[in-house]
Amino acid sequence: MEENAHSPGRLVFLGTGDAAQVPVYGCDCPACAHARQNAAERRGPCSALLEIAGQRWLIDSGLSDLCERFPPGCLDGILQTHYHADHAEGLLRLRWGLGPSLPVHGPDDPEGFADLYRHPGPLDFSRPFSAFERRPLGPDFHVTAIPLAHSRITFGYLIESASRRLAYLTDTVGLPPESEMYLKKQNLDLLVLDCTFPPQPTAPRNHNDLTRALQTITALSPGQTLLTHIGHTFDAWRQSPAAQLPPRVFCARDGLSVIF
Amino acid sequence: MEENAHSPGRLVFLGTGDAAQVPVYGCDCPACAHARQNAAERRGPCSALLEIAGQRWLIDSGLSDLCERFPPGCLDGILQTHYHADHAEGLLRLRWGLGPSLPVHGPDDPEGFADLYRHPGPLDFSRPFSAFERRPLGPDFHVTAIPLAHSRITFGYLIESASRRLAYLTDTVGLPPESEMYLKKQNLDLLVLDCTFPPQPTAPRNHNDLTRALQTITALSPGQTLLTHIGHTFDAWRQSPAAQLPPRVFCARDGLSVIF
Repeated sequence: MEENAHSPGRLVFLGTGDAAQVPVYGCDCPACAHARQNAAERRGPCSALLEIAGQRWLIDSGLSDLCERFPPGCLDGILQTHYHADHAEGLLRLRWGLGPSLPVHGPDDPEGFADLYRHPGPLDFSRPFSAFERRPLGPDFHVTAIPLAHSRITFGYLIESASRRLAYLTDTVGLPPESEMYLKKQNLDLLVLDCTFPPQPTAPRNHNDLTRALQTITALSPGQTLLTHIGHTFDAWRQSPAAQLPPRVFCARDGLSVIF
Repeated sequence: MEENAHSPGRLVFLGTGDAAQVPVYGCDCPACAHARQNAAERRGPCSALLEIAGQRWLIDSGLSDLCERFPPGCLDGILQTHYHADHAEGLLRLRWGLGPSLPVHGPDDPEGFADLYRHPGPLDFSRPFSAFERRPLGPDFHVTAIPLAHSRITFGYLIESASRRLAYLTDTVGLPPESEMYLKKQNLDLLVLDCTFPPQPTAPRNHNDLTRALQTITALSPGQTLLTHIGHTFDAWRQSPAAQLPPRVFCARDGLSVIF
């Protein structure tokens, strides 16, 4: 089938874990023990592959095997939410490679990650997004940078094709008011949202627990929500019979592919 | 066999590549093409496992799968040559783990790597080496920090058991005069040495070419030398018929295990 402006997009969850990933090194909690036995339950560094309007964009680059997964020329670019290690680590080897220039569009973070800016190789960091900037990335595909609430400058991304709207929002705890207001008007088909922790009595720092994630979901009222950036304590909590998610809210898992 | 002070040590080369590794992302030179077809010819981030006097120490931590290779409790510690990404990247996930404290003895580099010092988790960076400090790491095993010539503070390590002496020297171009003088007196059984490039007309920056590596070998006159931190241009050069190494000088490869 020829792709056109109205073809559906596809999002493949490459990793759905938090910085520690699942299983956590040295942890024997029920979730980690289970994941150690069942490869399908493991969670790698939070990242996704976006296929839309004939293009392929990586959202975050924390996977250590990027070089093996994506030979030169098979990506149009990278949307970088921020420059914490678990979201950028895979660039450390790729930047020593040859091949065509690869745009990395992220926030204008003066520090970046490790020495990436000093030795960028084929990576092109020259066009960072500004807050709420809406940028065409192809003839039928726009991306808008949505400021998130995290411990360093971080953007989620609103991705629009002719007929569909996806918001990918991690890492964040809640949303800054302007971002919430902006996204409320978008009639999202699909929301991908940080949910690192099970419900906590008070708001955690830097990442959503389920309580705060559900507040954002209620506010934005998307067609469907997939939770990502999931930590082992949330996975362990989900094993209890009382753990229920509302309708149209699901936990993503590594390898999940969603048409939107 | 019970291990005692006179048991031989073992060094396992876990990775023998330079920062780009082999194959280099996007490179089709003969060495990279060959390595892409033959897993045994690939070179990962330069690192080794030292087994000596009943202990197990990792030399450098650039492998991205440290958590899978080394479950908690199976290492006595890490000897860190320096804090470039390809020598430290594997700590980024491990530090979010649980389990006993793991000493990381390296140079006193105020920057370290990424945010490792800020979020060390079980990693204990509290006892860096000073130059030429000789430290017992077990009843029958001493380590001395040897300053190297690199783009940031870097130590090689002289490892001594009751009867054997190994020097592991990477990353470096040549040796600082005091280090060469110190090592000349050691009667090394085994030298492991940076040799990133084939012979170059002038000295490269930061890493040995074969010409400079052979100068160091001649100066130290070890029983045997294994070259490591090998880049793809050196591997490609080695495919030519004229490429010869002197007696008792060999190229290491990933997985090679040496008794010394």
